[in-house]
Amino acid sequence: MIDVVAFDGDDTLWHNEGLFSVTQERFRELLTPYTEPTVVDERLFETEMRNLRLFGYGIKGFTLSMIETAIEVSEGKVTAEEVQRIIDAGKSMIGHPVELLEGAQEAVEAVARSHRVMLITKGDLFDQESKLARSGLGDLFWKIEIVSEKDERTYRRVLDFHGLSAEAFLMVGNSLRSDVLPVLAIGGRAVHVPYHITWAHEHVEEIDLPDEAFATIDDLWELPQVVASL
Amino acid sequence: MIDVVAFDGDDTLWHNEGLFSVTQERFRELLTPYTEPTVVDERLFETEMRNLRLFGYGIKGFTLSMIETAIEVSEGKVTAEEVQRIIDAGKSMIGHPVELLEGAQEAVEAVARSHRVMLITKGDLFDQESKLARSGLGDLFWKIEIVSEKDERTYRRVLDFHGLSAEAFLMVGNSLRSDVLPVLAIGGRAVHVPYHITWAHEHVEEIDLPDEAFATIDDLWELPQVVASL
Repeated sequence: MIDVVAFDGDDTLWHNEGLFSVTQERFRELLTPYTEPTVVDERLFETEMRNLRLFGYGIKGFTLSMIETAIEVSEGKVTAEEVQRIIDAGKSMIGHPVELLEGAQEAVEAVARSHRVMLITKGDLFDQESKLARSGLGDLFWKIEIVSEKDERTYRRVLDFHGLSAEAFLMVGNSLRSDVLPVLAIGGRAVHVPYHITWAHEHVEEIDLPDEAFATIDDLWELPQVVASL
Repeated sequence: MIDVVAFDGDDTLWHNEGLFSVTQERFRELLTPYTEPTVVDERLFETEMRNLRLFGYGIKGFTLSMIETAIEVSEGKVTAEEVQRIIDAGKSMIGHPVELLEGAQEAVEAVARSHRVMLITKGDLFDQESKLARSGLGDLFWKIEIVSEKDERTYRRVLDFHGLSAEAFLMVGNSLRSDVLPVLAIGGRAVHVPYHITWAHEHVEEIDLPDEAFATIDDLWELPQVVASL
């Protein structure tokens, strides 16, 4: 029997990747004088991957990676004014209103009637706390964990910390890589709710996953029923 | 009786502000073509304070604030190469070896023999986790809390979360503002271990603090004795 249901935050309960996409679109336009849009995308992704080890996830690291990419693709010709526009784009992402996904609040409330519910979200501590506060969902959760990476080790640590067993744990999230695979690997269960955009870093190839421990749903309205069936 | 002794990380157990100082020194030099060193310091501090609400504490936010300050004080003349040097300075801060303060490990070990010891450190999640891992001190702590702000509300939340009472809680740290005053305010005890440099934001005027709940020591070698006496 499932005892605890944990939700991911970004792109599971509230929109996130859309904000990155819109910003990246503006970033491409900003660099039109210097290079092709596809080159910007490729180089930005390379820069982000190279910097991940130092910066971790989040908007501040993304902003620094955009600046580095702009310097690279412009061959040092990017202007101070353009750099400032990149910083301003990062700031406006941080200050952007938190928009809940369809059915997010209702799903958490419904599951909370029968289970303990947690939030396990990855990213920048300050930014995630701020988003959670603005989401209005904070009081619904039994426990909140903001983590810097979502791998097997992290899930094991979180479960140990709260004295939970993997067998009674279900994770709900949009990322196969971060919300589903590591949870299944440690013996938990997972529900995948795909978001319409997936960051390349989070992308994994389609794979067969065990039906008894895993389900995919189209949106959070379906969640309460699936939780009851798993 | 004190049950739990919590340590701050930056500038209490390991050096931190020195790294910011050295970087800021280089930043001043980098901007010599544009303005006076004192102007750089003033404007950087203003930029940091303005951005704190969006960026929180940590090296990535500091790096973005340096870039903004460089654009401002150079009146948009700072070059892409100079911006890259600022980013590189930020990266080298993140990757810098963690240097423990004199007696840090011994103090934590000594206190851990008679008390439960915690780490309560403020800043960027990813960066703090990385520093803790590199400090080699991780296994000494009963619990570790990385928080985005250290105010009364945060300490209350941490104590509640772990089921601790303020009366039995002692905080050890270098910052009167973050480690001492909020802990005394909620009824806990605190030991102040001043560091030789204090970031302007953490500075508070000398004040009278109650002797029975508070002590100042010169270095961590004195800690075990003071803990026993409080």
